[in-house]
Amino acid sequence: MSKRGKALILIGDGLGDWPVAALGDRTPLEAAQRPNMNRLAAEGVSGIMDPIAPGVRAGSDTAHLAMLGYDPFEVYTGRGPFEAMGIGLDVRQGDVAFRCNFATVDDHLTVIDRRAGRIEHGTDQLAAALNGMVIEDVTVLFKESVAHRAGMILRGPGLGDKVTDADPHNEGLQVPEVTGADEPSRKTARVLNEFVRRSYQILRDHPVNAKRASEGLNPANIALPRGAGYAPHLGSFEEHTHLTSACIVEVGLVKGIGRYLSMDVIDVPGATGGLDTDVMAIGSAVIEALQTHDFVLCNVKGPDVAGHDNNPSAKVEIIERIDQMLGMILQDIPPETYIVVTGDHSTPCAYMDHSGDPVPLVLWGPGVRVDDVTDFGERTAAKGGMGRIRGKDILMILTGFLGVQEKFGA
Amino acid sequence: MSKRGKALILIGDGLGDWPVAALGDRTPLEAAQRPNMNRLAAEGVSGIMDPIAPGVRAGSDTAHLAMLGYDPFEVYTGRGPFEAMGIGLDVRQGDVAFRCNFATVDDHLTVIDRRAGRIEHGTDQLAAALNGMVIEDVTVLFKESVAHRAGMILRGPGLGDKVTDADPHNEGLQVPEVTGADEPSRKTARVLNEFVRRSYQILRDHPVNAKRASEGLNPANIALPRGAGYAPHLGSFEEHTHLTSACIVEVGLVKGIGRYLSMDVIDVPGATGGLDTDVMAIGSAVIEALQTHDFVLCNVKGPDVAGHDNNPSAKVEIIERIDQMLGMILQDIPPETYIVVTGDHSTPCAYMDHSGDPVPLVLWGPGVRVDDVTDFGERTAAKGGMGRIRGKDILMILTGFLGVQEKFGA
Repeated sequence: MSKRGKALILIGDGLGDWPVAALGDRTPLEAAQRPNMNRLAAEGVSGIMDPIAPGVRAGSDTAHLAMLGYDPFEVYTGRGPFEAMGIGLDVRQGDVAFRCNFATVDDHLTVIDRRAGRIEHGTDQLAAALNGMVIEDVTVLFKESVAHRAGMILRGPGLGDKVTDADPHNEGLQVPEVTGADEPSRKTARVLNEFVRRSYQILRDHPVNAKRASEGLNPANIALPRGAGYAPHLGSFEEHTHLTSACIVEVGLVKGIGRYLSMDVIDVPGATGGLDTDVMAIGSAVIEALQTHDFVLCNVKGPDVAGHDNNPSAKVEIIERIDQMLGMILQDIPPETYIVVTGDHSTPCAYMDHSGDPVPLVLWGPGVRVDDVTDFGERTAAKGGMGRIRGKDILMILTGFLGVQEKFGA
Repeated sequence: MSKRGKALILIGDGLGDWPVAALGDRTPLEAAQRPNMNRLAAEGVSGIMDPIAPGVRAGSDTAHLAMLGYDPFEVYTGRGPFEAMGIGLDVRQGDVAFRCNFATVDDHLTVIDRRAGRIEHGTDQLAAALNGMVIEDVTVLFKESVAHRAGMILRGPGLGDKVTDADPHNEGLQVPEVTGADEPSRKTARVLNEFVRRSYQILRDHPVNAKRASEGLNPANIALPRGAGYAPHLGSFEEHTHLTSACIVEVGLVKGIGRYLSMDVIDVPGATGGLDTDVMAIGSAVIEALQTHDFVLCNVKGPDVAGHDNNPSAKVEIIERIDQMLGMILQDIPPETYIVVTGDHSTPCAYMDHSGDPVPLVLWGPGVRVDDVTDFGERTAAKGGMGRIRGKDILMILTGFLGVQEKFGA
């Protein structure tokens, strides 16, 4: 078997849902006009997929790791590294990542307010003032997130992640000295203590804080890292699969995962991550990427947004637009292209968050065992020839069809 | 997502079966009148469930552990602790549990009969004479089981479970000195050797044995512990799930598991564990428990009894009575209650024991993706929208719906 064909995984973020009374007890996907998804169902094989395992409420990060062939129970080392990716920090394998708070301390470094008055504005400037700091041979990369939150990574040789938090987790306490449990972690601790000290020096007189003081607001005069996590050694996607790959996604977190795996992360003008996103621009980017890559991962965020907002009709509408995008892609794909359409998890409108329900899935391409499902929906897919699989199975199935998977045994 | 709703898992013990010729090639479940189970099928989502994994012949203990969310491959530390629970010993996490034989030894502690003439009567009095013994700072809890068998637990600080057996496993050999593989286990060995010595002192002149001697029967003049097992640290059910819970079951072993997980174990007068059990009394207890608990586990033992007895018509009848009980429960449940009806394993009449077959399962409650199955049976359920899941998936699915499961990832 040698390499052949190409593959596209097209993900409607949070695609799965529950039956909605206002939609005639149909799910938004079931209620949507979706001729192109139905075509794939009719010409392909359908099933349902648990992103992680039955009933498990998947995050977008763990679900995408699974669909890219990694066992999330093995590689998910906590929120630090993945949140840092999510806010756009260029996390690399071997970095140590942290979640941070901007906080307010007094002259004795006693924490007055762990959230610096829940600061909303100016943290980009504060973060920029800390970003790029060098301590010993370690570089600090620092970026603001929402409100008082930020992410930080330490990059340098010989760093460990077994360190205590610089955050006392309660107000009225002094900022604690960070300690490390082993030699590499003692280096990390030394760097962290110096970082915290310098963050106070840099931030206390920062113009953003001077302005806050004049408004009677608590200054964001220190940065407190916590939740150290080693960015796992995953190798590159190509190393694992022998496939060149592109990642066309709207969510920062998933872009971060793509960069982390050295996929070509393609930014699409007009892709907003919202319900107003330009799906045709995304579709064009997919068509183009399939010309030059073996594998393309595409995620459209809209269905998840509508699910979180409990907005079934908006979910129907964005699914219909994704279907139109799929129609455009189908007119212009290379020969021998496999397409998987699925979700990374369910975000039922009535649940307004990621639920543990499986998502529908269809696989289309040369050689698949076409079943008698002709309609793409949560409940029709459950009757398909694929049965019930897991997120991490998808890449094994695709690498098999693409001829790049080693036989296990003789 | 925040906590909402309640859940009931209703288990027909050994519910699954094979097609029976005398029932027109229907299984007992398929042959039974079951309007209420069918209602759940019509309004819910069906599937089949492997208690442990496909083909694995599950015990009631391992199956219930799985359905309560524990991976039996991880937490099942052997029969000692679970058999001790099954005979009604109050096993607690950290205890060391043993299976024991009453045996017959001569004056030199050479084993003449490992089963003390397969003694049938009086072992309750013998066990009571040993129960409560204190050796060093360790308390011995001892209880008879069937025939010459008994269970024992040692409770005290610093005990290990890496000890040899006090049972020579062959007749004609002396009772061996128990040894321990590490410091805590050497303490256990010391206590065990003293226990065995004292058991002989206490039992040799016991009235039960005097009577046996007068009848020419081998005396049960010593207790020989074997198969040491550490009672695993599982935490409480509430700790894991954030759900208050009640356990309304007939089998001692499952009651033991409920107590072990600090569930409220509710005894129901009239619940015999046999085919004559008062299902309506059980149903009333379930209704009451659902008022005051988030989660109720209910197991009716009858179908398993009928399966072991190869009595298909009795199995049909007890299933019909469970269905009536379900009808009563359905009339009086709190709003937003999820119900799962299933078995803990199959006990096919023709097999007369637990088989490796999956069991049918239906999930009913707000938001489930109602499928087109309208009939609850082994073969109809296999066509349902749930597909094929495992015992340990059930609790993940329920905690997802109840809003008490942390998202895995972001």
